[in-house]
Amino acid sequence: MKKIVFNFKSKATKKFVKPKYILGGKGANLAEMGKLGFSVPPGFTISTVACELFYKNKKKLNSTLTNQIKAELKIIEKDTGKKFGDVKNPLLVSVRSGARVSMPGMMDTILNLGLNDQTVIALANKTKNTRFAKDSYRRFIQMYSNVVLGVEAYNFEDLIENYKLTKGVLLDTDLDENDWDGLINDFKELVKNKTKKEFPQNVIEQLIGAISAVFISWDSHRAKIYRKINQIPSNWGTAVNIQSMVFGNMGNDSATGVVFTRNPSNGINEIYGEYLINAQGEDVVAGTRTPQHITKKASKNSNEKSMEELFPKVFNELKKNLKTLEKYYKDMQDVEFTIENKKLWMLQTRSGKRTAKSAVKIAVDMYKEKLISKKEAVLRVDPSSLDTLLHPTLDEHTKFKVIASGLPASPGAASGKVVFTSEEAIRLNDMMQNCILVRIETSPEDIHGMHSAKGILTARGGMTSHAAVVARGMGRPCVSGSSEIKIDYKNKIFKSKDFEIKEGDIITIDGSTGRVILGEVKTVKPEISGDFSKIMKWSDGFKKLKIRTNAETPLDSKTAREFGAEGIGLCRTEHMFFDEERILYVRQMILSKSKNDRYMALSKLLPHQKNDFIEIFKIMNGLPVTVRLLDPPLHEFLPKNKKEIEDVSKSLSLPVNELESRINELHEHNPMLGHRGCRLGISFPEIYEMQCRAIFEALIECKKKKYKSIIPEIMIPLVSTEAEIKIMKELVIRVAKEVQKENKIKIEFLVGTMIELPRAAIKAKDIAKHAEFFSFGTNDLTQTTFGISRDDSGKFLNDYIENKIFDIDPFVSIDDGVGDLIEIAVSKGKKQNKKIKLGICGEHGGDPKSIDFCSKTGLNYVSCSPYRVPIARLAAAQAELKKD
Amino acid sequence: MKKIVFNFKSKATKKFVKPKYILGGKGANLAEMGKLGFSVPPGFTISTVACELFYKNKKKLNSTLTNQIKAELKIIEKDTGKKFGDVKNPLLVSVRSGARVSMPGMMDTILNLGLNDQTVIALANKTKNTRFAKDSYRRFIQMYSNVVLGVEAYNFEDLIENYKLTKGVLLDTDLDENDWDGLINDFKELVKNKTKKEFPQNVIEQLIGAISAVFISWDSHRAKIYRKINQIPSNWGTAVNIQSMVFGNMGNDSATGVVFTRNPSNGINEIYGEYLINAQGEDVVAGTRTPQHITKKASKNSNEKSMEELFPKVFNELKKNLKTLEKYYKDMQDVEFTIENKKLWMLQTRSGKRTAKSAVKIAVDMYKEKLISKKEAVLRVDPSSLDTLLHPTLDEHTKFKVIASGLPASPGAASGKVVFTSEEAIRLNDMMQNCILVRIETSPEDIHGMHSAKGILTARGGMTSHAAVVARGMGRPCVSGSSEIKIDYKNKIFKSKDFEIKEGDIITIDGSTGRVILGEVKTVKPEISGDFSKIMKWSDGFKKLKIRTNAETPLDSKTAREFGAEGIGLCRTEHMFFDEERILYVRQMILSKSKNDRYMALSKLLPHQKNDFIEIFKIMNGLPVTVRLLDPPLHEFLPKNKKEIEDVSKSLSLPVNELESRINELHEHNPMLGHRGCRLGISFPEIYEMQCRAIFEALIECKKKKYKSIIPEIMIPLVSTEAEIKIMKELVIRVAKEVQKENKIKIEFLVGTMIELPRAAIKAKDIAKHAEFFSFGTNDLTQTTFGISRDDSGKFLNDYIENKIFDIDPFVSIDDGVGDLIEIAVSKGKKQNKKIKLGICGEHGGDPKSIDFCSKTGLNYVSCSPYRVPIARLAAAQAELKKD
Repeated sequence: MKKIVFNFKSKATKKFVKPKYILGGKGANLAEMGKLGFSVPPGFTISTVACELFYKNKKKLNSTLTNQIKAELKIIEKDTGKKFGDVKNPLLVSVRSGARVSMPGMMDTILNLGLNDQTVIALANKTKNTRFAKDSYRRFIQMYSNVVLGVEAYNFEDLIENYKLTKGVLLDTDLDENDWDGLINDFKELVKNKTKKEFPQNVIEQLIGAISAVFISWDSHRAKIYRKINQIPSNWGTAVNIQSMVFGNMGNDSATGVVFTRNPSNGINEIYGEYLINAQGEDVVAGTRTPQHITKKASKNSNEKSMEELFPKVFNELKKNLKTLEKYYKDMQDVEFTIENKKLWMLQTRSGKRTAKSAVKIAVDMYKEKLISKKEAVLRVDPSSLDTLLHPTLDEHTKFKVIASGLPASPGAASGKVVFTSEEAIRLNDMMQNCILVRIETSPEDIHGMHSAKGILTARGGMTSHAAVVARGMGRPCVSGSSEIKIDYKNKIFKSKDFEIKEGDIITIDGSTGRVILGEVKTVKPEISGDFSKIMKWSDGFKKLKIRTNAETPLDSKTAREFGAEGIGLCRTEHMFFDEERILYVRQMILSKSKNDRYMALSKLLPHQKNDFIEIFKIMNGLPVTVRLLDPPLHEFLPKNKKEIEDVSKSLSLPVNELESRINELHEHNPMLGHRGCRLGISFPEIYEMQCRAIFEALIECKKKKYKSIIPEIMIPLVSTEAEIKIMKELVIRVAKEVQKENKIKIEFLVGTMIELPRAAIKAKDIAKHAEFFSFGTNDLTQTTFGISRDDSGKFLNDYIENKIFDIDPFVSIDDGVGDLIEIAVSKGKKQNKKIKLGICGEHGGDPKSIDFCSKTGLNYVSCSPYRVPIARLAAAQAELKKD
Repeated sequence: MKKIVFNFKSKATKKFVKPKYILGGKGANLAEMGKLGFSVPPGFTISTVACELFYKNKKKLNSTLTNQIKAELKIIEKDTGKKFGDVKNPLLVSVRSGARVSMPGMMDTILNLGLNDQTVIALANKTKNTRFAKDSYRRFIQMYSNVVLGVEAYNFEDLIENYKLTKGVLLDTDLDENDWDGLINDFKELVKNKTKKEFPQNVIEQLIGAISAVFISWDSHRAKIYRKINQIPSNWGTAVNIQSMVFGNMGNDSATGVVFTRNPSNGINEIYGEYLINAQGEDVVAGTRTPQHITKKASKNSNEKSMEELFPKVFNELKKNLKTLEKYYKDMQDVEFTIENKKLWMLQTRSGKRTAKSAVKIAVDMYKEKLISKKEAVLRVDPSSLDTLLHPTLDEHTKFKVIASGLPASPGAASGKVVFTSEEAIRLNDMMQNCILVRIETSPEDIHGMHSAKGILTARGGMTSHAAVVARGMGRPCVSGSSEIKIDYKNKIFKSKDFEIKEGDIITIDGSTGRVILGEVKTVKPEISGDFSKIMKWSDGFKKLKIRTNAETPLDSKTAREFGAEGIGLCRTEHMFFDEERILYVRQMILSKSKNDRYMALSKLLPHQKNDFIEIFKIMNGLPVTVRLLDPPLHEFLPKNKKEIEDVSKSLSLPVNELESRINELHEHNPMLGHRGCRLGISFPEIYEMQCRAIFEALIECKKKKYKSIIPEIMIPLVSTEAEIKIMKELVIRVAKEVQKENKIKIEFLVGTMIELPRAAIKAKDIAKHAEFFSFGTNDLTQTTFGISRDDSGKFLNDYIENKIFDIDPFVSIDDGVGDLIEIAVSKGKKQNKKIKLGICGEHGGDPKSIDFCSKTGLNYVSCSPYRVPIARLAAAQAELKKD
């Protein structure tokens, strides 16, 4: 059996190319701190390999593993002079999880393991502090019973509360050693009742239980959700660290604390942290006592003295260690330490979590300090995290009426009509109307509705509720758990304070502060300046991918340019059809009985569409613009409910029954796979002709106005065969020639296609004969490759994540299988046409992991929503740098 | 410029590896008849290559082509001693199309080309028959003006009819040369009026016009439809044959005829044909005069004398020629000849069209006659044609009430409920109810409805109407153009004679005779015996592919076995759910609020499903049976209209609104891409557990009853990831172990998956780790690869065929791109698991072209509907033989 347990001092650590993969982050860092000469309590790491074996072995530790653990215990015993389970000088240990990346939701720590009815007495004798020993024991029973034995925490809290009530005291600190003794008995009784077994007195049994609990916590619901959000594969597994205990609660010359080498919220280069005298680590986390500051400077407004003042010698040693650590790791560190009888013990170090803002500042500062190179600085900022810096915020200069508040569950501000069902959200979104989805709470069935809404407001649920987690993942603003609002689904209203909000009323939510506001509020666009702008500039220096944007309005186009977009990768012309004035003509066109009638209606649409293009071309000022011809099935433009049908019937003077029968005719069982994309262009070439004419006439208008000239890229959607692109290209060229002849001005343009169907990818070589560019439409490509409708996937997506079938939602990051198809298309397309332009315009275009894939696959550009352009710029730079 | 026009005597013919590809069937055969020493009127062939050039050259003949034609004319002039356009001894020619395969719908023949106001006089002088010459000229004007100049035929007919009325005669033969002279002037006037041009007097202009017309007719609507039905690629093009005229209408020692070397309707080895004295070819075809028999034997009941009697010498020469031709071509020939002044001219020979019945007999006979080998005999029968021999027919021993009759548009008999809309047909089919779609006429929007119906009845339309053509293509019985029936869509009834038939009433149609019958009529299954059975036996000797069937009822299973099925390739378990008794439990199961309720409902379904399997296993008697676990989305089982909802609400004592809200919850935007297939197995493992238990318990029951033991192949549908098949396989094995333990009997089975999603094909290597077989579900694979919903494709399929985007409907024959994915899956699957079983179970499994593909790709079996099993057996044999 190979070695799967490693002492912190083990030489094996050095051999690992990626020690974190084997030892986890915590374990690897403990081993490295030892090497740096710090005082680290002796211990060992049970590797992530063991985790895998644990799951293979029906969630049990096999004998090889337990043997290796026992052998390592012997070494600690030797190092500390203590013995595990010894009634005179007992060794106590902490048990901590430690995955490759730090991961909340998993079991964190069990302290003081090794205590039982005998060893607690030894501890009391040894420390000459019976209350401390008893207190430690009861804490251990509490923690262990909860985490390992599954006895819910409130049971113990109740016992303590009742006891205090009986005794007539308020605080835990009012309880003495005898009180704890009684409670320890009560605790053990409770455990026996709940688990039908005695609380384990055998310390090895305790240890095996704790290790198993760490492994099992890897698969807990919260851990899974965290992995989902953060796209961590579920097969990594966790390591477990066993370390001899040191005590920060041995009296007033002991303490415990957490310290960052820089300020994690704003990035300023200063020691930042907290500590508690006479306490154990969990006290700092639990928040029952208010911790004191580490530095004198930080505590200048505090009554309590800082560690710098009270433990000057230890402070200096710590300060020196922190410096060493930052130099060693070349990154901001998050360090846990304990002072036991004035001796500093380093318990843990890891790269500190930080806000996007501080990440940017730290990266730029460290470059200035020559700690890291420019490359490293660019690699240091997580592109996804920039999202928090890139949401519009409320314009606080305007006046607004806050009608409720809740948790700031997902940042950003959004306004829209109130809707109470996902269906309604989808409907409004289809009609290009903004809405806010208001639900008591959300469930997986709401995913598509949440996607369709501009923001989500829930009455129930915390920061990790379904609504909050999903909204953050989607980048939708969300206010969750706003208990002030009372929702009445039946009457489609919600009440808050004295306000009654009906479906269709407009509200604004601010997901950064948790405010709910009546009406629409002006928002302020985020800006890219200072350090952020530096990182962006450096990124642009490294990246090779061009970053374009998906935009069809002048506003979006402008925003995207300000964020650094280098062109438009997807201008969806159908979005231009939904304007109130135009939709009438669109409907007229669809309901036409003859080609002539259709021409009439189209001729009314032409000037509108032309003007749209003129504006966009002007803004894009010479940058490329990819225009996609009409894509959705025509029935999407028709009225859906009775009232709308009546309205349309009136405005088009078409009898209701005739209108209804036409709507019925156009109905599709599977609209996603229906009469859409270039299939419309084949059936109704006059529609595409009008759109091409609008583009070309706009181009000529721009030339006349001396705007910087643009070469539009006309994109044919949903092509699956060579014949389709061939016929459509002929159409485009024909119209171009007509317009050219009419105006006597030469027109330049490209014709290409979206690759969004598996057949198009497979037959890319044939299609590339006629296409000057491919743009991968990964939304639809994912839908067809998997045979999964995104609109309907809510019904089983959760089951799929639970069952680990999807590690990552394939609609968020490009799936492996879909990726294979893209690679096939790229290689075949290039074989046919070396100069073919390649891009991606699905939502994956703004996802860093997918951008990395696009870079590796040799695409020329990615296109994403305007607010994701900076993320894409950084991700593209990182993709390039990671290639080296 | 290379040679694209070839004289019949040209030596180039011999050089062509496949002369038909270049010269067309007709041209190649004329050249070969010359070589056999027959009298063939001199002429030449304009090759199919010229057709391609014609279309490339904007539908014009280029100068090279016209030059080559003129050069060839010179040669004919030399051979015949006549001159084209000469006013003394003019050369007249026929112009005929001739594609690689004979193809109705294209321009057939223009005779007497070269006649004009001058040459007609020369012809009169030369033949000493002015009436014949004038008659020929007016016929030529009529034919040419119609076919080449586009003047509709009725215009000329009207002129003739009016003339006869004025003259007071009845028959054309009552008109003399002067009458024709007058009419010729009227005809020319008419042409001038209609075309704004004089009727061409220049004979070269005439010739160029006729050649162009042949090329253009290749692209006519009818030709396209024919190609679609017969799966002929549109890029083959046609050749044109120019041949000097001989005249069968030179008097009573002249004649013209058509003869087959064997009887084309029953295959008997006897000369079979018709001829007309003093007539041109078109008279035989037009049917204005009743032709006489060729042989004495055939004319024994006729008043007219046979050719054998009237032209004994010529008859003997013809008979000898026919023998020679059959020996040369080793196939039954269809020959055109003309007798000009007692001289026999062979005009054309080709392989004769024949009924399936005669094809089978001729193949077997020719083998017996040692004309062809067994291999050739098997290759001689078109598998698709067998379809006509494989439909159930009405049991004529039972009494039934014929209420209407129409055209026998597509063979076979079918009974079912009358429906008037495609939607209703789809709905009933979803509920496993048989229906007959009754429409005034059908349109492309009805395609899915026609597919869902068991038969089609139309009030309008002929043998080539949309309904007839599509029904034949689909193998659905059809009676078209039954003008007796009056359909009232609004009230959902049709009337015929004194009968009034309401929607939901049961009728039977007999597509082989055109009868419409009240109520359900017993049918007789077709049998395989005699020569048919011989061909089947020989096929089995050659084929390597196994032929399985898609069947889920004992009846289908039995039928398929009688037709030679070697197992079941697809048993769709959901079809077992629709029985009236069971659907209640199915709905109970779906509407369950808890897992327990669902278990309860499932436990009621278990015995039914188990019994189904016992019966099928018994019938299959040791052959493999592939059982697919539940596939369709659950909402398919729920009631759809108001009345049904009320009924279900009552029978399940579930409030209507609760039922409706559950139905709403289950609604899907794109059910084809929804919560179905193994996604159901992941979400509701208890359903699949029940189904597996039913299979295994049935297996044990069969063992106890000592039935021949079966190894079922359990098929997981709609897998797209490795994890899905892995989890599902674990479930199957778990249930198997349970049942095994309970019964203490060992169970053997295989677990595999359908490959019906592009991702499954791409990731076949991973999936094959867990799958013991792959079955290609080409219906869904085609839908997802193309992103086309078959249910909705009717809206644009026609546009796609018109635009030549689809040469062949990809839902009929496996598309090239889909084929690529299958090849990828086969190669990756085999790489992972050499022994993996490979099959296909989509509807393509019964399509000969697709079977050929499956054979080449190395699949082990194909599975098709019971009635197509013999077709598949033959196609599989041919696929193998073609490999040599």
